[in-house]
Amino acid sequence: MMRTRPLKVALLGCGVVGSEVARIMTTHADDLAARIGAPVELAGVAVRRPSKVRAGIPQELITTDATALVKRGDIDVVIEVIGGIEPARTLITTAFEHGASVVSANKALLAEDGATLYAAAERHGRDLYFEAAVAGAIPLIRPLRESLAGDKVNRVLGIVNGTTNFILDRMDSSGAGYTEALDEATALGYAEADPTADVEGFDAAAKAAILAGIAFHTRVRLDDVHREGLTEVTAADMASARRMGCTVKLLAICERAADGRSVTARVHPAMIPLSHPLASVREAYNAVFVESEAAGQLMFYGPGAGGAPTASAVLGDLVAVCRNKLAGATGPGESAYTQLPVSPMGEVVTRYHISLDVADKPGVLAQVATVFAEHGVSIDTVRQQGRQDSSGEASLVVVTHRAPDAALQGTVEALRSLDTVRGVASIMRVEGE
Amino acid sequence: MMRTRPLKVALLGCGVVGSEVARIMTTHADDLAARIGAPVELAGVAVRRPSKVRAGIPQELITTDATALVKRGDIDVVIEVIGGIEPARTLITTAFEHGASVVSANKALLAEDGATLYAAAERHGRDLYFEAAVAGAIPLIRPLRESLAGDKVNRVLGIVNGTTNFILDRMDSSGAGYTEALDEATALGYAEADPTADVEGFDAAAKAAILAGIAFHTRVRLDDVHREGLTEVTAADMASARRMGCTVKLLAICERAADGRSVTARVHPAMIPLSHPLASVREAYNAVFVESEAAGQLMFYGPGAGGAPTASAVLGDLVAVCRNKLAGATGPGESAYTQLPVSPMGEVVTRYHISLDVADKPGVLAQVATVFAEHGVSIDTVRQQGRQDSSGEASLVVVTHRAPDAALQGTVEALRSLDTVRGVASIMRVEGE
Repeated sequence: MMRTRPLKVALLGCGVVGSEVARIMTTHADDLAARIGAPVELAGVAVRRPSKVRAGIPQELITTDATALVKRGDIDVVIEVIGGIEPARTLITTAFEHGASVVSANKALLAEDGATLYAAAERHGRDLYFEAAVAGAIPLIRPLRESLAGDKVNRVLGIVNGTTNFILDRMDSSGAGYTEALDEATALGYAEADPTADVEGFDAAAKAAILAGIAFHTRVRLDDVHREGLTEVTAADMASARRMGCTVKLLAICERAADGRSVTARVHPAMIPLSHPLASVREAYNAVFVESEAAGQLMFYGPGAGGAPTASAVLGDLVAVCRNKLAGATGPGESAYTQLPVSPMGEVVTRYHISLDVADKPGVLAQVATVFAEHGVSIDTVRQQGRQDSSGEASLVVVTHRAPDAALQGTVEALRSLDTVRGVASIMRVEGE
Repeated sequence: MMRTRPLKVALLGCGVVGSEVARIMTTHADDLAARIGAPVELAGVAVRRPSKVRAGIPQELITTDATALVKRGDIDVVIEVIGGIEPARTLITTAFEHGASVVSANKALLAEDGATLYAAAERHGRDLYFEAAVAGAIPLIRPLRESLAGDKVNRVLGIVNGTTNFILDRMDSSGAGYTEALDEATALGYAEADPTADVEGFDAAAKAAILAGIAFHTRVRLDDVHREGLTEVTAADMASARRMGCTVKLLAICERAADGRSVTARVHPAMIPLSHPLASVREAYNAVFVESEAAGQLMFYGPGAGGAPTASAVLGDLVAVCRNKLAGATGPGESAYTQLPVSPMGEVVTRYHISLDVADKPGVLAQVATVFAEHGVSIDTVRQQGRQDSSGEASLVVVTHRAPDAALQGTVEALRSLDTVRGVASIMRVEGE
């Protein structure tokens, strides 16, 4: 069954992931050939710094001209692991034009402009695979695109950024503040020198956009995703969560509205009960829950980043794309037929944990409760606690029932304007029930 | 892009799973059509009892002649959910001959004689998909066959039978004995009237055979799988596990030998630490760990059985097979190129927890320790405890380091023959570290 003419692969980018891809293509060439039905050959590697020594990659394969590489015309598959919007987008669409299918790990580009890539792939009859773009080695895109293709997904909820999970895990286990935990993450290589994309939630939001689009068969772009990072999560918030039997995680949540007519996608820190499986996801691991009508609740767990895990996802896609190529077929393309609109954050139904500093005198609770009632927000629990000092202040911790985020936000604004409320110490959503 | 001639589907079996498949095919027809690119039509349903009322299935589709249905010649996909070896095998191979691809949930048949099915599918250029055969709704076959196709899987370890997990969970949480827990499982519908296939481990062993074959790209049959059920697990074993900070689970374990030259597959009860994620898999849920070279450790969790979850897996396969059919291609076939042999249980490296009733006198521990040493088995911990009665007996609980199962078995046999050992109260393997 084995054909002998090799399939030619161009690698764009040779950093942490790219070098692992190249290494495994060499060391496991026989396995890949057996699984594909033809050998695969690394035909060129586009890099920015050609002088850097790259063990195991023959110097003659190295080029700085990525465009010429994807235009060669004899390339069967382009693996894009350079990231960012440009030149990645142009290189990918050029690759499609010149006969190649593409395997990409580029979450930012897919979230920003996936539609352009899908359309170009379809126009030229090529494959676009990107398992590595979300949650590293964890099979998630393929299960959503294929395994659950006969089911109706209602919710995707998960931890999709390892850096922030590491930070929150440290804050939870050691009582450290955000800055201290970030420093540790940086020192251990879990956070980049500029951690903005991770800690501000951009990375997770891109993944949420990709997951929501696939799960609900519609188009969701990065701008559609409500995004809050974790830079404002304090040690006090974490302690507060603990007192409630919860921990704090940065969650990506994609939901179909109850009436089925719209979807939402958001990334923000949230308290989840310690009994929830996501609460025990430690260090830089990722885990994603998928809830669907027939399958019920599924969970996928594993390393969400790193060179080797991400390379595993890339190479799984490479095998699939090569098989398709040999069969003269393509895998699933964009599925956005539901055209469900993405609702704004205000329409998301969630719960709030609100910690207030209030005057320590009678009638305050009644006043506060009235504000909640006026906004149609029902209270689940209240914990009132006098401070053991002479400040004349007390703290009031309110956990609400489920209500639209806009009503909850409105409640908080109104609380701020009460004379008896000295300040809103913290607000955090509660999820995972 | 939508073509209008529908793809025709024949359903063999209309029990718990089949009726859910038929229902979803009707209620979600538009979604399925959009995802496939063509409508799918239920063209016939083969049942044993045609007089039974089946809501939502037109009577004219019902037939008792499954053979005639698969021979019709106009069937694109046959969904086989009748189970068992025959007539399922003949019906499937006949379907391939007559132009249909097959989606099956038949773990027994795939484990017993998957090679025959694969060969028939390949000979006729058809697809054979069977996600539903292992762990119900949990995507596991597709991730192993496709997502990890560029990686090297070294170990698959999991809970793949919901009935036995329910029983063990009850024994653990309530202190109930096996019989009592089984009765509860039966009353709640988690165990069948004849629970043999579940409690003796046949069901899990079939799944282990399927998983091992796919994970290691070799052939593993049911007979190759070492199998021990849970009928001999006692409340005392469970209590013993608790004292060690463990619980007992019925595990399916497939491993590549350290030298890479063989594989093993086994199903047996084992103690696992409470800190291990599998320890917290409750009720009838399933969860499977997959360890591979590049991806590291992945976990898949979800409902392992039930009509709707299994139907979700069947319909996901149906969409894939229909897409392939429209593209004139087929998905991955059998991948058994490594031809790795399956080693017997004696060569498996594991740890034992051994509880001995011994004479309560000096020198016994030395005698026992000598037996371990003579068999090359190194001891991790010993707990010695005099009984607070006048029996003159004590109990000795030994946990070994890792050693070949044959050496561990040999040790136990030798211990039995010691004068000072009155009896071996329990033996259980320890896994999950």
